[in-house]
Amino acid sequence: MTAYTDLEAIFRRYYALKGAGSILHWDNATMMPANAGDVRGEQLAAIAEATHEMITHPRLADLFDMADTEKASLDEWKQSNLREMKRLWKHETSVPAKLVSELTKACHESELFWRKARKDNNFADFIPYQEKVLKLVRESAQAKADAMKLTPYDALLDQYEPGAKSAEIDKIFDNLASFLPGFITKVMDRQSKEPTPPIEISGFFPANKQKALGRKFMERMGFDFTRGRLDESTHPFCGGVAGDVRLTTRYNETDFLSGFFGIMHETGHALYEMGLPAQWRNQPVGEARGMAFHESQSLLVEMQLTISKDFLIFAAPLMRETFDVSGPAWEAENIYRLVTRVKPSLIRVDADEATYPAHVIIRYMLEKEMISGKLAVKDLPEAWGTAMHALLRVKPDTDANGCMQDIHWPDGAFGYFPTYTLGAMTAAQLFAAAKKTNPEMGEQMRIGNFTHLFEWLKKNVHSQGSKLSSAELLKQATGQTLDVAIYKSHLEKRYLV
Amino acid sequence: MTAYTDLEAIFRRYYALKGAGSILHWDNATMMPANAGDVRGEQLAAIAEATHEMITHPRLADLFDMADTEKASLDEWKQSNLREMKRLWKHETSVPAKLVSELTKACHESELFWRKARKDNNFADFIPYQEKVLKLVRESAQAKADAMKLTPYDALLDQYEPGAKSAEIDKIFDNLASFLPGFITKVMDRQSKEPTPPIEISGFFPANKQKALGRKFMERMGFDFTRGRLDESTHPFCGGVAGDVRLTTRYNETDFLSGFFGIMHETGHALYEMGLPAQWRNQPVGEARGMAFHESQSLLVEMQLTISKDFLIFAAPLMRETFDVSGPAWEAENIYRLVTRVKPSLIRVDADEATYPAHVIIRYMLEKEMISGKLAVKDLPEAWGTAMHALLRVKPDTDANGCMQDIHWPDGAFGYFPTYTLGAMTAAQLFAAAKKTNPEMGEQMRIGNFTHLFEWLKKNVHSQGSKLSSAELLKQATGQTLDVAIYKSHLEKRYLV
Repeated sequence: MTAYTDLEAIFRRYYALKGAGSILHWDNATMMPANAGDVRGEQLAAIAEATHEMITHPRLADLFDMADTEKASLDEWKQSNLREMKRLWKHETSVPAKLVSELTKACHESELFWRKARKDNNFADFIPYQEKVLKLVRESAQAKADAMKLTPYDALLDQYEPGAKSAEIDKIFDNLASFLPGFITKVMDRQSKEPTPPIEISGFFPANKQKALGRKFMERMGFDFTRGRLDESTHPFCGGVAGDVRLTTRYNETDFLSGFFGIMHETGHALYEMGLPAQWRNQPVGEARGMAFHESQSLLVEMQLTISKDFLIFAAPLMRETFDVSGPAWEAENIYRLVTRVKPSLIRVDADEATYPAHVIIRYMLEKEMISGKLAVKDLPEAWGTAMHALLRVKPDTDANGCMQDIHWPDGAFGYFPTYTLGAMTAAQLFAAAKKTNPEMGEQMRIGNFTHLFEWLKKNVHSQGSKLSSAELLKQATGQTLDVAIYKSHLEKRYLV
Repeated sequence: MTAYTDLEAIFRRYYALKGAGSILHWDNATMMPANAGDVRGEQLAAIAEATHEMITHPRLADLFDMADTEKASLDEWKQSNLREMKRLWKHETSVPAKLVSELTKACHESELFWRKARKDNNFADFIPYQEKVLKLVRESAQAKADAMKLTPYDALLDQYEPGAKSAEIDKIFDNLASFLPGFITKVMDRQSKEPTPPIEISGFFPANKQKALGRKFMERMGFDFTRGRLDESTHPFCGGVAGDVRLTTRYNETDFLSGFFGIMHETGHALYEMGLPAQWRNQPVGEARGMAFHESQSLLVEMQLTISKDFLIFAAPLMRETFDVSGPAWEAENIYRLVTRVKPSLIRVDADEATYPAHVIIRYMLEKEMISGKLAVKDLPEAWGTAMHALLRVKPDTDANGCMQDIHWPDGAFGYFPTYTLGAMTAAQLFAAAKKTNPEMGEQMRIGNFTHLFEWLKKNVHSQGSKLSSAELLKQATGQTLDVAIYKSHLEKRYLV
């Protein structure tokens, strides 16, 4: 036994217990009887306590010291694994236990109050809850920053997107922020001049038929139903663990398209999990690289693959057949026009592809200022309105439709928002690179052949786990680091050509 | 903090993790994708290791010593809780870790081989597997016996039925063994002289209708669907945890009755779990009293309540309505005659109420001799045949239909079998006692009113958890300890009057 193998054994159990928790979280959302939440809470708390104790056990410090001396004898994957173990360990040990539990409690209370306050559009009474959460997040960020030699905001970022630096994101987002308002205006202008607007799709679309169609596409894309399931939940998600993926969706029987693209989005997440290196299961190096890469996989399937003319040429006849419908509304071209309609709006989760990044940039700017102390919670509504107007030319009518719309801040998840747009950019860059290796890819998509794309992704992204940093992984896969020009070019080609 | 409260905290987490494992076991059997067994195995192993370490941690010995000095200050429930904590702790700590893991491995290999060997009726090649399991079970039993000052077989019994003693069971089973052969002959004689045999029920019974009817009865008996579910699995069971009960069944669309009584059987288990004292959840004293009491609850619902003329008078019209059928086969009297038909057969799980105890007694006698070393595995087929003939006047045609039919011994579960018949006897005694407190109970059953029975059970059994010993609990509930005369009287009244 070496110190490294001891560490592997500890992390193997750590991840196996976390995985048990993931399945239970899925069960919560899909199967659990209505009143069993109390019991489930106890089970999840016990798992959280047990895993936390495992990873904060004093002997890990010694094991890491010893493992460092063995480093030369470890292969590349093991060295990466050791690096990722340390990163996790630093996150878990740098914040005092008392602060962790205060923060958990404050987030829980804040989230509960926020659910009601948002309904009542009552920001004033929510302020003290958000202030308390922010205060504790800042303390936690400072503790992590000290331990990891990062700025506090970068320490928060690192929880979701390891290695991300706000200095880099600033450059990217500044570039985008100066591009978006003009771009959005041009797209809207262009779309308003089209001779006729796209035809809305309406009708009744039975859930079982939506499900059958969703499954058909999932299978065609490589979702392995011997290693995963498709169920229903109020909030769709991709859960479970790499070898047992639990994908959920929600069927609206009068709105087929949103559900369909929702399933496709989650399928992107699922294929990433299914393609992770099985031999590194239950080790940090076997995990997905980070939230930006995870989101890149869902957005690649949703925005790059399925919201494309090539794909819709294949999909539209299957949709018509499934629901026994016909007519011009169900032509691929019309569906494409429908789902690429651009219009600034107040709510992020309802935003179209072109305006979505603006929502993210606004949140990123504001949360950085809250973490640095420059922006007080009470001043958030005004700052929100100003930023929305600057980037999207709209102003929220209420706080509920403004700074209170998202769960992230009430729940203490500062540092998460930028991963959405980093993911969208990464998706565009990966898709372009995959297409470059096979000029026939577009033609193949028209006949429902997605093999090249998903084999390319599996080889270049999924099977790499967390061996490389996000930046290295993207460079290895596409030949260059994250390039905002590729993303802008995707948007321009789709919306202005 | 006292030592006792420290122990409560340890056991709280221990049971919460075990509970997480129970939900995952249910998921295995009902929801898990076909190939995810490897991942699930890792999760369950991690839970098993974590809980084992918790309860075998060296500080528990000190805590128990200190808690003993606090005993006078503890109320009755806490004193019982402490007693049960110690019992569990002794079971977990008395066997060396190496032996535990050898036994686990041997049982796993033996069970795997048995599945195939039973199919092939190949006892000869199975012998070494069973011998290895038996050898390790005997070592484990000896270690437990030394620690708990019991005989080795009683130490095994104590795992399933705490406090049970083979000296007591011997008396009861000897009494039954001398009663059964003559009784069975008399019943068969009587049934053969009936002017017409009961009419077999045949037809197609859609699973969804069977399920709807099952749910109707479950609800009427008090199954709380906000605290439990009904699903399907190959082998029906009642799983999950007290506050989140996961009951499963199997629908045979050409055999309605067996599925129906199967659901009723599991509902008895479920109501016990649902009625356990919620304030003692995740503590040993809040658990069901033992396997005999658990089986008593399932058999009480199945054999005492639902296989009764009173119940069937209420149920038969609902069955007819559900499947839109009619005719003499569906009369309550005919259904009753069908399900009380007695005939010795080779397979325990298919046995009727009257011959079932003989199957159990045979296994009990043989496993005691295997544990004491008097009976070698290789001599099992002959001993089996002799015992079957003595009690049931039948001899197995094959070992597959003989000593290889049950999973218990291949899996190392020696000491379990007697709980089935102790459960059946306890069921008869509890039912008789409940009826004595309300002479109208039979009349009420005829109109589908089961309130009195289940309120009585909840008060006198379910809500008592493990506060008392099995013997004390039965005495408190019925006024006397286990009395074989009551059980015999139940059988005689049902089959000979």
